[in-house]
Amino acid sequence: MLKKDNVLKIHKKLKGKLKIELTDKLENRKDLSIHYTPGIAKVSEYLYEHPSEAKDYTWKSNNLAIISDGSAVLGLGNIGPNGALPVMEGKAMIFRQFGDINAVPIVLDVHDKEGIIKTIKAIAPSFGAINLEDIAAPICFEIEETLKRDLDIPVMHDDQHGTAVVVLAGLINALKLAHKDLGECKVVIVGVGAAGTAIAKLIKEYSPKVNLILIDSKGIISKDRKDLNKEKMDLLKISNLDNLSGDLNKAIKNADIFIGVSKPKLLTKKHIQSMNEKAIIFAMANPDPEIYPDEAKKAGAFIVATGRSDFPNQINNALAFPGIFRGALDNKIQKITDIHKIATAEVIAKLVKKPTVDKIVPDIFEANLVKSIAKAIK
Amino acid sequence: MLKKDNVLKIHKKLKGKLKIELTDKLENRKDLSIHYTPGIAKVSEYLYEHPSEAKDYTWKSNNLAIISDGSAVLGLGNIGPNGALPVMEGKAMIFRQFGDINAVPIVLDVHDKEGIIKTIKAIAPSFGAINLEDIAAPICFEIEETLKRDLDIPVMHDDQHGTAVVVLAGLINALKLAHKDLGECKVVIVGVGAAGTAIAKLIKEYSPKVNLILIDSKGIISKDRKDLNKEKMDLLKISNLDNLSGDLNKAIKNADIFIGVSKPKLLTKKHIQSMNEKAIIFAMANPDPEIYPDEAKKAGAFIVATGRSDFPNQINNALAFPGIFRGALDNKIQKITDIHKIATAEVIAKLVKKPTVDKIVPDIFEANLVKSIAKAIK
Repeated sequence: MLKKDNVLKIHKKLKGKLKIELTDKLENRKDLSIHYTPGIAKVSEYLYEHPSEAKDYTWKSNNLAIISDGSAVLGLGNIGPNGALPVMEGKAMIFRQFGDINAVPIVLDVHDKEGIIKTIKAIAPSFGAINLEDIAAPICFEIEETLKRDLDIPVMHDDQHGTAVVVLAGLINALKLAHKDLGECKVVIVGVGAAGTAIAKLIKEYSPKVNLILIDSKGIISKDRKDLNKEKMDLLKISNLDNLSGDLNKAIKNADIFIGVSKPKLLTKKHIQSMNEKAIIFAMANPDPEIYPDEAKKAGAFIVATGRSDFPNQINNALAFPGIFRGALDNKIQKITDIHKIATAEVIAKLVKKPTVDKIVPDIFEANLVKSIAKAIK
Repeated sequence: MLKKDNVLKIHKKLKGKLKIELTDKLENRKDLSIHYTPGIAKVSEYLYEHPSEAKDYTWKSNNLAIISDGSAVLGLGNIGPNGALPVMEGKAMIFRQFGDINAVPIVLDVHDKEGIIKTIKAIAPSFGAINLEDIAAPICFEIEETLKRDLDIPVMHDDQHGTAVVVLAGLINALKLAHKDLGECKVVIVGVGAAGTAIAKLIKEYSPKVNLILIDSKGIISKDRKDLNKEKMDLLKISNLDNLSGDLNKAIKNADIFIGVSKPKLLTKKHIQSMNEKAIIFAMANPDPEIYPDEAKKAGAFIVATGRSDFPNQINNALAFPGIFRGALDNKIQKITDIHKIATAEVIAKLVKKPTVDKIVPDIFEANLVKSIAKAIK
């Protein structure tokens, strides 16, 4: 077991997990005159006249920014830019190792919607893509939408879409094993923040007939609620067709699938016993899931997935984001759409040659993972 | 001679001069759990509680941002963020090669003073220092002052101070050879933008009795001028004590030192012939100097320096900035002051063991350069 104090010591010793290296030598005056003055003036003039070609002449060809204001980091909540930075560096390591992408962590000391949007637009010419990370709901939605609309580079909030893609990938294989069709399933999603919202939308897009019930900390998202913000009101268009009101006890009855991005210990054996046969449980609260796999299995669950690496079926967005951005950069894609996300989920699902109840998603170290996703994104 | 089209081809082939590498391996689940979830949570929590220690646990320990809005790039002027990016990448190469620093180019799509300040403050927690670059005067002055005041990391506008430091270094050796004392010299500076202003201030700080005359495109900066902005008005406090009015013809008479950061071919033989004996000429307009060295020598100049690598005495701020930031990061200096700048100039001057009229500054490839500057900055 990993000792937490050791992690702190390792980080203090490393003093940073990233370094910048050169792609060409800089050893004499000639090298300097190519890469700096006076030679570089030719490149600058050319890119002034042809700004859209900058991605062919600079490291924008293969870089991105991982941007967070530190308002919703891991299970820790609003821990600010300094708390967020080591996580973003870790994510940059994953981008390098698995995606062969130069990812620059940018943590923000601005926390309002307009301020975050303005800052990102201002620095956008420095990057080939933008991975929004750990920005709290509901402002994350409008931030992403605005940037997608106004910038000409791919922008993706990974807490939303990376998670949604891997959940869908896992569901595809889980449903195959359960011999069920998503369009005939009742799916209960608990947690209506960034991840829960995106999971709901992607599942609905993938399978429009699905019966979705969403639950936040106040109960089922329904027309009777007077406290819903705009984003949650919008979710009524794709969920709760029977206009259920109440809590999880009510919603979970005869459900086929439970998806939790909420709180530890929220789901009980009794809940699972009230679900349909071959119940599929994605209990992804971090670090402690809504229910532990052994308990869920005892209650009769058919398949259990969590966010943890120490149990089978880890739903980890690192399965998706390196490949999605690799594909977006390779194919010069300006907008990452639902079509790309669904294609990614299908590729991830297919990489498990023979799914079993204990292996519905591939390993993150699976050799073909990133290449297969990048190829699918065209 | 370097062919300009080749530079373009080299850049298109490279597709970027920088890459991000890892300082530790990421090969198995254990590595992932140290550098990403779940282990990283310990580091994040610790830095949330101790934000000022983030520089000891992240790559902020040894990184900086090179930030430009592209409004005053090389001799090219306002060529925007895409035009500026390859220059900033080149500068990042120099930081890596000579200063062992991870420098991240950030080019901005915002061009007003307030917008630039807000953006830089917003992204500042990502970096251990900030090198402002190629931002036009006069907004560059207030941007730098505000950021120096409000941020707890070193901020330096290199066009101002890097240039001023190397000019002062060159002057120290040139005056030694001419057996003159700066405090008894008349110094004419042509060009009152970022560089000219900073050169004037640093020379005055170094030698308070110096007789400075500053000239912009409208003539000598004097009390009689009605068109001076606040920054130029302020310069009257340190220059033009005799209240001269007029143009270069008038100012240059009996001057000891000419410093040009202005336009090609501005200085004539006749000008130099009207100067005092052992005239020192720093003709630093890029790429074509105010006067070429051979012509200046023919007119009787004692020492001529330019910004070019193909003549002796290249006044190149790359002699200063890697060492200044290396020293600031090593010594956890929050503000780079005139004391640091003067110490740097003296170290650079001293590195030329036996100055001659053709060697008043060291070579940028001089082995001890960065180390010596970093040591002097304490």
